[in-house]
Amino acid sequence: MYLTQEKVAVMGAAGAIGSNIVQDLLSTKTACRIAMYDPFAQGLEGAAEEIYHCAYPGAEVSWTADVKEALTGADYVISSGGAPRKEGMTREDLLKGNCEIARGLGEDIKHYAPNAKFVVVIFNPADITGLTALVYSGLAPGRVSTLAALDSTRLQTKLAQHFAVPQERVTGCRTYGGHGEQMAVFEDGIVVDGVPFAEIMAGKQVNGKSLSAEEWQEVQTHIRQGGARII
Amino acid sequence: MYLTQEKVAVMGAAGAIGSNIVQDLLSTKTACRIAMYDPFAQGLEGAAEEIYHCAYPGAEVSWTADVKEALTGADYVISSGGAPRKEGMTREDLLKGNCEIARGLGEDIKHYAPNAKFVVVIFNPADITGLTALVYSGLAPGRVSTLAALDSTRLQTKLAQHFAVPQERVTGCRTYGGHGEQMAVFEDGIVVDGVPFAEIMAGKQVNGKSLSAEEWQEVQTHIRQGGARII
Repeated sequence: MYLTQEKVAVMGAAGAIGSNIVQDLLSTKTACRIAMYDPFAQGLEGAAEEIYHCAYPGAEVSWTADVKEALTGADYVISSGGAPRKEGMTREDLLKGNCEIARGLGEDIKHYAPNAKFVVVIFNPADITGLTALVYSGLAPGRVSTLAALDSTRLQTKLAQHFAVPQERVTGCRTYGGHGEQMAVFEDGIVVDGVPFAEIMAGKQVNGKSLSAEEWQEVQTHIRQGGARII
Repeated sequence: MYLTQEKVAVMGAAGAIGSNIVQDLLSTKTACRIAMYDPFAQGLEGAAEEIYHCAYPGAEVSWTADVKEALTGADYVISSGGAPRKEGMTREDLLKGNCEIARGLGEDIKHYAPNAKFVVVIFNPADITGLTALVYSGLAPGRVSTLAALDSTRLQTKLAQHFAVPQERVTGCRTYGGHGEQMAVFEDGIVVDGVPFAEIMAGKQVNGKSLSAEEWQEVQTHIRQGGARII
């Protein structure tokens, strides 16, 4: 009934993203054996209760503030257990604290879940926290990943909105690098409702709408600043 | 691919419950044509962006702070658009404000979505807000409902935890009435892992655990106070 019966440890499960991931794993029938972990036990219990009240058939959801219990025997580990950027914090402040959390996560995985098949690190800056967790976990590089497609999906969303076409009619959107000014936004490969991006930049309309060089610049800026709006 | 292509209006979609409902409608492939409505336009845009960034295939999700636009042509309406209880507010304070919101919802449905097939009202006190929305909507009684099973599921959860059995092995849990001391919690019909509740109360163990009359009283109190813990 569920895609896997293997154990999934969700770290940071008291938070908005973590608790949402648990719900989605169950709603989409992806996984049913889930260990919710968070150091904030009181909030975690509330988040777990919400899941219990959904009464997913066949679900085996446990919660614990003990990282050993959460990770032991875990086949998959998903961590959104970083700290969000707070008022007045620089990106570097975030980097330091969250990399310490990522190091701890890696060490814990090494101790308690050395046979984990796949680990996903989704707290920012994800490229660096993911690498840190990988290094300290001792897992093979192919077994640790981060949430990497968000900026590309933002680009897809923005172009779909500009041309007023369904989002899935925009394909080939790719970005590279962390959220921010240094992010590369690629034109190559983008196709909007069947029209290659080069033709659009040459003036071809899609759905009765064109995209000027200036508007394309604005879209890129919007995507580069997407991270700043959220984190 | 989705269960229905008909339009679903989700009211209060900037809130935690509303935005979660949108996500779940899409994740579970229940509905793809969704109008997100909330008077708080800025928060709503953020909630809608989050949904767009999930890139659900075939999704047609729009957002608006204009209730007419949201409801026009809606086949289904789900509203979690009430106000939560705040520090120092009595249940009666909540009742008054939320019933005014429910009346407005009913009137709006009457004007803009008179052919709605089904309406679900899930803000508290749901028994009264649901009735209010029904009366002012002019819809047939069978077309308006509330979220009614939460307390029963809480009871199921609590008993499953007590006996350490999977939640779905506890069946027949029923409660009646609003959250609070006046709620009736029924014993009749409860079966835990195949054992009728009467036998449990007579001393029969389930999974090596018994339930004393005193413990059963504690469970009931826990369920009756469940609403107070959350709202």
